Amino acid sequence: MAKGFQAAAVSAGIKKNGKKDLALIVSDAPAAVAGVFTRNRVQAAPVVLDRQRLAGGTCRAIIANSGNANCATKQQGIADAVAMTRSVSDALEADPQHVMAASTGVIGVPLPVDKILSAVPDLVAALDPDGFADAAEGIMTTDTKAKLVRRQEKIDGQSFQITAMAKGAGMIRPDMATMLCFVCTDIDMDAPSLQQALAYANERSFNRITIDGDTSTNDTVLVMANGRSGAAARTPEQKDVFSGLLAGGLEELARKIVADGEGATKCVEIAVINAHNEKAARQAADTVANSNLVKTAFYGEDANWGRILAALGRAGVEFDPERVDIWFGDVRMVENGAGCGDQTEAAATQVLRNEEFSVFIDLKSGTARASVLTCDFSVDYVKINADYRS
Amino acid sequence: MAKGFQAAAVSAGIKKNGKKDLALIVSDAPAAVAGVFTRNRVQAAPVVLDRQRLAGGTCRAIIANSGNANCATKQQGIADAVAMTRSVSDALEADPQHVMAASTGVIGVPLPVDKILSAVPDLVAALDPDGFADAAEGIMTTDTKAKLVRRQEKIDGQSFQITAMAKGAGMIRPDMATMLCFVCTDIDMDAPSLQQALAYANERSFNRITIDGDTSTNDTVLVMANGRSGAAARTPEQKDVFSGLLAGGLEELARKIVADGEGATKCVEIAVINAHNEKAARQAADTVANSNLVKTAFYGEDANWGRILAALGRAGVEFDPERVDIWFGDVRMVENGAGCGDQTEAAATQVLRNEEFSVFIDLKSGTARASVLTCDFSVDYVKINADYRS
Repeated sequence: MAKGFQAAAVSAGIKKNGKKDLALIVSDAPAAVAGVFTRNRVQAAPVVLDRQRLAGGTCRAIIANSGNANCATKQQGIADAVAMTRSVSDALEADPQHVMAASTGVIGVPLPVDKILSAVPDLVAALDPDGFADAAEGIMTTDTKAKLVRRQEKIDGQSFQITAMAKGAGMIRPDMATMLCFVCTDIDMDAPSLQQALAYANERSFNRITIDGDTSTNDTVLVMANGRSGAAARTPEQKDVFSGLLAGGLEELARKIVADGEGATKCVEIAVINAHNEKAARQAADTVANSNLVKTAFYGEDANWGRILAALGRAGVEFDPERVDIWFGDVRMVENGAGCGDQTEAAATQVLRNEEFSVFIDLKSGTARASVLTCDFSVDYVKINADYRS
Repeated sequence: MAKGFQAAAVSAGIKKNGKKDLALIVSDAPAAVAGVFTRNRVQAAPVVLDRQRLAGGTCRAIIANSGNANCATKQQGIADAVAMTRSVSDALEADPQHVMAASTGVIGVPLPVDKILSAVPDLVAALDPDGFADAAEGIMTTDTKAKLVRRQEKIDGQSFQITAMAKGAGMIRPDMATMLCFVCTDIDMDAPSLQQALAYANERSFNRITIDGDTSTNDTVLVMANGRSGAAARTPEQKDVFSGLLAGGLEELARKIVADGEGATKCVEIAVINAHNEKAARQAADTVANSNLVKTAFYGEDANWGRILAALGRAGVEFDPERVDIWFGDVRMVENGAGCGDQTEAAATQVLRNEEFSVFIDLKSGTARASVLTCDFSVDYVKINADYRS
């Protein structure tokens, strides 16, 4: 694990089922901090608070609860978010401005802040360098698995580490950060450089996944760098080493989020190649990746390329439908806009039986490319979301 | 029924289950014709053909098959569409340019045109002034009910009628015509005026419904006016009478399509009021109406207004989240961006138990409004679409 960090989680009684619902991550020393947040116009109270505090560039701790989003809760919501961070800064004797908050769960219900404040002493007492798995569990909502990754690299012979956790499941869409992700690293790096590295890594990971086309009001990614490893990123080359490592870690988390999408049984990469520009490639990939008809066909293991072609046609992207090729894995099913025949169908169906596969869409109208990770759309997605609050 | 029209349907063996899959509508005399089509960049062969023939302004007959979309079938598809219209013009001794075609079903499979050509003699022999219910059945795919409406009105004491059929079910979305709709009227009206009336009626009906956010490659609405009633629309006032009647008929068909959406159990109007302009109102209504999370909550009869607020927040529309009111029917659940408390929850849940209800979203940022009809998102939608081709 990254040096100089501790984490913990407890059950504060916010979730009705008694599971862990309050997590804390603490750096031994004040750390440089970077963050990206939801672009939804409706923003949860902790997002509003964190945006303000991020300007200071320094963070000691992040407190996060699941089971309640603290969103659409107005001034009381802000006061509650401040109170939960204040209880942590009091316990740690830290600067109150150096504690961030995050919440995930139901929107529009007042945060049970008393339960949180009562649980903070136990939470602080439980802090442990090996507490990250617990913390990753504490931020879960409809996730079925805790998501934790580690990465290690060297700069000038000096090792440093990244420990990163995330939760996802529903309301994931490109162009937004994931639901919640917290990254601890023991490299020494200034806050503006850390922010650049996060922007780079976020664009290659969380901004390339989609589950259901909806977007959370609470999406938050925070990175803390405390410098405790002795490794430092000062030169552009050193910063690139860190950015690359961070991107790899977040990509793995992004893949875990898609694979654990609500009701998902498959993780599918939609890669659009030879588009006339990158925006078009992205828009085409995004439209296909968000099509309910395409996603239900994946669930049914049905190589229904007609739905992919129909989604491309409404993507608002210029291309010639009579030149498009579509591949399922290494099986070309469509050549120049027409099906390749029944013998490819059986081979493509074999590809669709895998838990992970790629669909390549060759627009033959340029050289740009983009890819988006999506999941299939199952009966369980509907069941989970029809019953979520009850 | 509108005078001077006959219709029929037979089973040509395109559908595997032996149900009716080939329909024909014929006007005794050449009729003025108007049409609107899908805006998908990928367009089925019959859509390409009809667009060309529409320029002539005259139509005698429409032949439509279900079970195969004749889309992504290239030059052979065009040749097949021409062949199916030619067999009808030969049988009726009509001008080949005066026959339109439509297809609906699976994309990317060659049209079994021989089956169609073999069935045309029986189809023509079955033509009957009372054959419209059969024809409406012949164009169904995953629809569970045939959709047929009639309207009657007078101009200068002279009665005229509209007989209209449609099929819908999946791949429905605003800004596109519905899957297939054919309208027969015995009014006397020139083709350009008929086109204006259709554009007006289409905007208030099929362009205001959504089922799954996907868009067909085959959407077609055709109106034939043969003048056989003796009523004529010549003055602007007379044309308005016709436009109003047509809009009412298409609105009823649109509502039937949503109520029979794939797997739908509820028909819900999303009305956005007091937006700063109509485009914003429409965009906000459309985003809420297409949100999977909102639609699954409707299915679960869960008054989860937080999901509506989150969808509004990502709609790309300017508004102040702290001023929004949200009503389920006559129950206000959100006032100025915050929930109205637990007692409204029970009342709102009662509203959601209905098969039809409205959600009003008051943005309080202007005077513009727009509404979209949508359905809920059920487990059956996924089952239907995972298994569609198999």
